[in-house]
Amino acid sequence: MPHVVKKKPTIESRQIIAQSRFFQIEQMDLVFSNGVKAQYERLCGSAASAVMMVPMADPHNIILIREYAAGIEGYELTFPKGRIETGETPEQAGQRELMEEIGFGARRIVPLRDVYLAPGYSDYHCHILLAQDLYPQKLKGDEPEPIETLTWPVDDIGSLLNQSDLTEARSLLALFLLRDYLAATGA
Amino acid sequence: MPHVVKKKPTIESRQIIAQSRFFQIEQMDLVFSNGVKAQYERLCGSAASAVMMVPMADPHNIILIREYAAGIEGYELTFPKGRIETGETPEQAGQRELMEEIGFGARRIVPLRDVYLAPGYSDYHCHILLAQDLYPQKLKGDEPEPIETLTWPVDDIGSLLNQSDLTEARSLLALFLLRDYLAATGA
Repeated sequence: MPHVVKKKPTIESRQIIAQSRFFQIEQMDLVFSNGVKAQYERLCGSAASAVMMVPMADPHNIILIREYAAGIEGYELTFPKGRIETGETPEQAGQRELMEEIGFGARRIVPLRDVYLAPGYSDYHCHILLAQDLYPQKLKGDEPEPIETLTWPVDDIGSLLNQSDLTEARSLLALFLLRDYLAATGA
Repeated sequence: MPHVVKKKPTIESRQIIAQSRFFQIEQMDLVFSNGVKAQYERLCGSAASAVMMVPMADPHNIILIREYAAGIEGYELTFPKGRIETGETPEQAGQRELMEEIGFGARRIVPLRDVYLAPGYSDYHCHILLAQDLYPQKLKGDEPEPIETLTWPVDDIGSLLNQSDLTEARSLLALFLLRDYLAATGA
């Protein structure tokens, strides 16, 4: 399939038009290669890079967490995740999040996929990593309440994909990536 | 797997602290069930519901688009998508987006999955729909430049998953959902 390389629009100007503690909204004036002008808004922020960890309690079970999600004002079944702090590699951030959120470190970390959550209007991107060979190691995090953890058999990912409180595209994708990875490695 | 129903935090106050044409940032003061107070920010906006369409040109090929993505300042390989306008059902919005972006309507639409993009801080959610039995039908959209379309064999979804300009978790998930759906329906 030939890849047509299209000339990117020229950015004529850009400015931050709104800002809060966590978000910055940038307005961009663009001129597309056909001459059409358009104004776009995008989110950009300090937390632009994140990790999501898929931890395996043992070769047959994964660990999930259930935590409060302010966007949907409810509890969401998901994986340990968080932003990459300055100076951290994705793997280091992933180890820290695992220790803070489920009380484990990982002896083996395998990259599954790097993804954007909403490339149309946000520069936020996330490394999805598999964490294996866990060992107990607790780090204090900044969560407002203890995080509920649960384990799930990898043989039963199908039913997990249909849980009503597992709604995020990134978490669902992580499950498919895990399933493919385990099938490809004969696990 | 027993589902522990945790009491949701109480929302003590909420206010819009920043606003632009496309985004609203809301600040919430929460009290968790253990008494801990925390301040959260979330995005909420007029475009909270969207559709992503996975169109099949015929039983053996899907149609993708490549369009400018302001968040990553580059072109992204993705599926036709857009927000659900007031009064539209997801199916109606999907038909409109197909006509505007690739010049087809669909005689058959199958829901694949409803997802949130970032439930931790946004109420934006999206219906991923499969579109089959297409017929030519063009509607004028508001795109600043013609959208490039391309077809891809469903037998080769594996290589599509590894394209460097297909980066969005939602698009990648759509491909896995399609693969499972086609396998389950014996297509």
